[in-house]
Amino acid sequence: MAYSREALIEAVSAQMPDKRWQHTLGVMETSIKLAEMYGADPQRAETAAILHDVAKYWPVERMKDIIVQNGLSAELLQYDKQLWHAEVGAFVAEHEYEITDPGILGAIRYHTSGREGMSLLEKVVCLADYIEPGRDFPGVDEIRKKSMMSLEEGLIAGFDSTISLLLQKRRVVFPLTVLARNDLVRILEEKI
Amino acid sequence: MAYSREALIEAVSAQMPDKRWQHTLGVMETSIKLAEMYGADPQRAETAAILHDVAKYWPVERMKDIIVQNGLSAELLQYDKQLWHAEVGAFVAEHEYEITDPGILGAIRYHTSGREGMSLLEKVVCLADYIEPGRDFPGVDEIRKKSMMSLEEGLIAGFDSTISLLLQKRRVVFPLTVLARNDLVRILEEKI
Repeated sequence: MAYSREALIEAVSAQMPDKRWQHTLGVMETSIKLAEMYGADPQRAETAAILHDVAKYWPVERMKDIIVQNGLSAELLQYDKQLWHAEVGAFVAEHEYEITDPGILGAIRYHTSGREGMSLLEKVVCLADYIEPGRDFPGVDEIRKKSMMSLEEGLIAGFDSTISLLLQKRRVVFPLTVLARNDLVRILEEKI
Repeated sequence: MAYSREALIEAVSAQMPDKRWQHTLGVMETSIKLAEMYGADPQRAETAAILHDVAKYWPVERMKDIIVQNGLSAELLQYDKQLWHAEVGAFVAEHEYEITDPGILGAIRYHTSGREGMSLLEKVVCLADYIEPGRDFPGVDEIRKKSMMSLEEGLIAGFDSTISLLLQKRRVVFPLTVLARNDLVRILEEKI
């Protein structure tokens, strides 16, 4: 990695309001904890956490241009703009911040949507994003509790809360999140 | 259609317990009503309704054989067996009951899952299956109420109840149902 941890923190924190950076600090802390608890590499988890929201506050048009011009997921453009920053973030991490570790890039790319066949690192960062200490939404304590049982239990609870909220708000549900959740349900069924 | 309406009723009702046939009678009645209300062909709606559950009580192995041997949706086999009877029913309607109308076959095939780009007839039969008078599950009256506003409103409420129930029961969610629901949400958004 060409950037030092400190240089990365300085550069990424400048891309968002302080409140969002506080959230990122929470995701960094929780990613390290979950990584240590479940046997992922805490340093790689932290790097992904630092970068996960790098594009969150970028203008929608800038995100769209990056997706279109670089042939990133065209399907994503059919869905909520809230999902775009994850794919764009992974692209930016690679091309601006010189992250070459595909595991870290995947953890950034899938931190919002999840996907089928999530890696350990992807699970850690995605779950940390749901439960970092600053999060306060209905059901978050239940997700935190389940996160202590397993990454999969925590993520199923997280994805269930996301899907339920989207149904309630009459917003479209990103299919990949349903596939991610189905996959985790099956993994736990097979363990029984 | 080679079978008369009466011959079809006689043959199909023999494939299921009386209680399920009572449900089919309800779906026939409601399909006709919804067809008349929303401008579909009541006779085609009724034919699809008569046949929609023809394979519902067939042994799982028989359904599986039909799916595998005839190259029907292999994806379906990855999901709940409750979904199989719709695809098998459409096949049986065509090959045993000589239904050649692709619109009727589609209404049988997608009556449980829905799909993106549902036809008017598919919407009618799928919604009738949710709200026929014999149905009694939490939220069914809300779905009935919304069915009077539009087919799409009724179906979104129906699919939402199905998806929510599957989340609660920790069962996998069939992706096509999510796509069907997203599609209807978008159709209504465009109408605003």
